[in-house]
Amino acid sequence: MKVALLGYGTVGVGVRQMLLASPTLEAGPVLVRPGKADESWKVTAMEEILDDGEVGAVVEVMGGVDAAYRYAKAALTAGRHFVTANKMLVAAHAPALAALAEEKGVAFLFGAACGGGVPFLHNLARAVGSGDDVTALGGILNGTCNYILDAMERRGQDFARALSGAQSLGYAEADPGADLSGLDALRKVVLGCAAAWGLLPTEGLLREGIESFTAADVAALAALGRRCRLMGRAEMQGGRLCALVEPTVCPAASPAAAVLENGNLAWYRAKNAGQITLLGQGAGRYPTASAVLRDLEGILEGERSMLPRGCRPCRAEGGLLRRRYYVRCPGSAAAALEAERHFEGEAGTARLLTAPMTPAAIHQWAAARRGAGEEIFFAAWEEEEC
Amino acid sequence: MKVALLGYGTVGVGVRQMLLASPTLEAGPVLVRPGKADESWKVTAMEEILDDGEVGAVVEVMGGVDAAYRYAKAALTAGRHFVTANKMLVAAHAPALAALAEEKGVAFLFGAACGGGVPFLHNLARAVGSGDDVTALGGILNGTCNYILDAMERRGQDFARALSGAQSLGYAEADPGADLSGLDALRKVVLGCAAAWGLLPTEGLLREGIESFTAADVAALAALGRRCRLMGRAEMQGGRLCALVEPTVCPAASPAAAVLENGNLAWYRAKNAGQITLLGQGAGRYPTASAVLRDLEGILEGERSMLPRGCRPCRAEGGLLRRRYYVRCPGSAAAALEAERHFEGEAGTARLLTAPMTPAAIHQWAAARRGAGEEIFFAAWEEEEC
Repeated sequence: MKVALLGYGTVGVGVRQMLLASPTLEAGPVLVRPGKADESWKVTAMEEILDDGEVGAVVEVMGGVDAAYRYAKAALTAGRHFVTANKMLVAAHAPALAALAEEKGVAFLFGAACGGGVPFLHNLARAVGSGDDVTALGGILNGTCNYILDAMERRGQDFARALSGAQSLGYAEADPGADLSGLDALRKVVLGCAAAWGLLPTEGLLREGIESFTAADVAALAALGRRCRLMGRAEMQGGRLCALVEPTVCPAASPAAAVLENGNLAWYRAKNAGQITLLGQGAGRYPTASAVLRDLEGILEGERSMLPRGCRPCRAEGGLLRRRYYVRCPGSAAAALEAERHFEGEAGTARLLTAPMTPAAIHQWAAARRGAGEEIFFAAWEEEEC
Repeated sequence: MKVALLGYGTVGVGVRQMLLASPTLEAGPVLVRPGKADESWKVTAMEEILDDGEVGAVVEVMGGVDAAYRYAKAALTAGRHFVTANKMLVAAHAPALAALAEEKGVAFLFGAACGGGVPFLHNLARAVGSGDDVTALGGILNGTCNYILDAMERRGQDFARALSGAQSLGYAEADPGADLSGLDALRKVVLGCAAAWGLLPTEGLLREGIESFTAADVAALAALGRRCRLMGRAEMQGGRLCALVEPTVCPAASPAAAVLENGNLAWYRAKNAGQITLLGQGAGRYPTASAVLRDLEGILEGERSMLPRGCRPCRAEGGLLRRRYYVRCPGSAAAALEAERHFEGEAGTARLLTAPMTPAAIHQWAAARRGAGEEIFFAAWEEEEC
């Protein structure tokens, strides 16, 4: 099968290299910006790709939403399989693209959009396809944040130094806002919800990043035998869905705490299979490109979709779960929280473990205290190994 | 697709329940022993299954090798897809069954035979199919041994008490020899080699179980921040293959050390994807049955094989790798080993870390010392997180 590429950046270069080495796939035209077509196989107009009757699949690795969406619709309308590594595109337009692909009898796959090299969505979709009932999913879905947390914990770096290290290694963008705030991880949770339940939560999502995490928090958690990870989580209960991203404190001897550097971890829990956890490289040229190639190989084997039929937007409910939270806040602010345990804190600072409460309640409380100018750190307390 | 079952034990009951609940699969006849056909859907002759023209796939969950092999050949010859959870059958006859399935254009899948509910072989086969180059694989592939090691380490039980606990929970057989000696895990490593490289190593395999591990070893390793796991490993170097099962001492903060109870962990390393690790339930009715259902769903999607074409037996080479080993032996026996570090040992006992040496050399040394009546424990020393 001849495969066209949209975009020729870090991942695109890797995908083309692998296509050239593949015994079953053929490297086709690559769409680049006008003026950048310095090779015979580079083209600057989508029509040149769609006019090539041999192109069976189009791979989008250009990023952004609007142009990528136009190209996706054009490729699917023209009866070409469509594979993307673009989580923003999928989070924004999965229902429409899935419906169009089904109508045209072609594939719409996006294994590289969640977990990079970790084959999470594929396995999740396969569990659903085999009739298993997925009840929850989540994981460490942003390698930049994990690199920073790990550098703070194992190398004793402060937040700013760890962030600058992540940037110099190319893990973090010049503007790392979407990573640090949990937005990137949340988009991946949304894709997991789509694969697991055919629901794309667009409202009611809760998100807390790692910007408030400090070296003092590292030390306080280490004394409890715990490490902090930024973890996404989605849970389905009685047809209602909760989806969020939060710092989470895990036992030091847990798979999540053992995820180092910019590694990723993704898990799902299903009625029959139990909990399945996958670890690997969440980003990078070759891991991400390998996920694209696995999708293309899946297409050759007959795979067509990662989504249950009729995937649709929904509203998530932040009040659905009850979790304990580890909180660091000014001593004066702690009284509003029901504490199960108090830990030793710096002067004027409370460190405590709350009684089980809804994610919505702690997020609202933290937002209100921050609105009053207070410094707050909070993180879900993982009861079991995570 | 109508699915017939061979065998109706622990896993078979789970598979039938899931078939009855499946929207895409239909529960067909179930082969049981003569005299046990107490339901209309139970049959006692393979012919009754093959005479049912609606049966599209046959699932073997009866165990044993000879009868299972006859039935497998009969099913494939009759043009039926064949799915098995039987690692002994696959380790013994994969090349012949794969060739027969290919000739008949039907599927031969055995995802449940390695890792139970953990979708290891499927992902490994898919990585290979997408052109990625697998260089090594391994993991914790025997839940019984892991339960025993974990009970010794976290609950302070001695070996006999931990084994008896595993038996009372139904994890260990009345004769647990194949588990404790590493034979069961080694069979799964062999299946991994078949999926990764199309090679079924039948000679030159190295195997050390957990029978020599003691409470004193637990304490000595804990003092080093390490835990013991029984791990399989296979590595391909320049067309030569090493495949073995050995106790392995891992850092306490590693994913392997975080595998508790009867959990499994399986990993592969590939040139493009990097290392991918999967964790989950390695055995049990529903996890294993869920793996069978995933194979059947894969057949509906077009999956036909987990093996590269031309899978063939080969000889493994125990001299291929070089690893450091943690060794406990009588002080008088230690002189024959080149030690990089000496640890504190009980009176008359040496505890040491060897310089890198071949697996063949340490296995031969241990066999010779045991032949002389000495008590030896040795375990590979995991350099990185495992």
